Amino acid sequence: MTRILYSATMSLDGYIAGPGGDMSWLAEHLGGPNPVAEDLMGRIGALLVGARSFHGDDPNRGTDREGAFGGAWTGPSFVLTHRPPATPVPGVTFVTDLDSGLAAARAAAGDRCVNIIGADVAAQCLAAGQLDEIVVFIAPVLLGDGVRLFHRPGGAQVRLEQLAVTPEPVPCLSLRVRQPAAGSQH
Amino acid sequence: MTRILYSATMSLDGYIAGPGGDMSWLAEHLGGPNPVAEDLMGRIGALLVGARSFHGDDPNRGTDREGAFGGAWTGPSFVLTHRPPATPVPGVTFVTDLDSGLAAARAAAGDRCVNIIGADVAAQCLAAGQLDEIVVFIAPVLLGDGVRLFHRPGGAQVRLEQLAVTPEPVPCLSLRVRQPAAGSQH
Repeated sequence: MTRILYSATMSLDGYIAGPGGDMSWLAEHLGGPNPVAEDLMGRIGALLVGARSFHGDDPNRGTDREGAFGGAWTGPSFVLTHRPPATPVPGVTFVTDLDSGLAAARAAAGDRCVNIIGADVAAQCLAAGQLDEIVVFIAPVLLGDGVRLFHRPGGAQVRLEQLAVTPEPVPCLSLRVRQPAAGSQH
Repeated sequence: MTRILYSATMSLDGYIAGPGGDMSWLAEHLGGPNPVAEDLMGRIGALLVGARSFHGDDPNRGTDREGAFGGAWTGPSFVLTHRPPATPVPGVTFVTDLDSGLAAARAAAGDRCVNIIGADVAAQCLAAGQLDEIVVFIAPVLLGDGVRLFHRPGGAQVRLEQLAVTPEPVPCLSLRVRQPAAGSQH
């Protein structure tokens, strides 16, 4: 069974982007070798990316490090959007709903994981009981406002189980989703 | 010079309380021995507590673990509030503004640290360039909404420097505030 994981680099205070999707804060925390991120990428068979992340700010835009995993990702990417672009994008398949996006990404990933990129898609997967794991790199910065790692107005209590904590080069926490969120189909 | 630190247990997604200040989620993550928290408490000479934290929900209310550090804290506490209670509270000094609260807490702490409890007071200290360190315990849960570790509408970029990461029993990150926030008096 293909596992679905949500990975992100967040600020200490839980933001994956600043106000308006600003990602400029991230640039100074990228760049050096990160064996933990490389191991993670090796586990991944396909990306399922939210529209906001796909169309959004990339701190490496215009450089050879543009794109997922600092430009190192070369596998299949599925982008969930209601407005696919008119011209094809090499390596990217556009999907218009979560179920078909997950099905396509699972099929492409095979026995590796599907990596969710984007807080909205991750929250949708969680609500559907389809999220297995969360991997968070914690950058040494406070942002105070912006796009949160997870936002469900009114709150939730999604229990997790710690899988691993690696302190270097950037603290990274891996956790398993212990119970499906409300609305789960499991 | 007395150091000012902000400590909190937060959810993976950066909330220190749920909606309406709910702390019930925390109970299941407390209880066992936590040498990291005990070491932290040993460094602290005084608490400076926000009104919302002081009057708020305590997951241990009514038990012998009620209060800061699971009831183990016995030193001086200063509570920042515009509405001090009519009857004195043993061990608690009420202060009505940040400057006098910090001065009193520093004097009481001596060569140990002042520990800020409460996101609002911590944000005020940060804005005033008075916060030296942040210590965060990360509970394995997502809350999705509530009181954030740090909230500044419109955003900020407060750079931090990693001091320590301890994986067990609950991941704990200690960071030094690298640059004063906007509005700093430094």
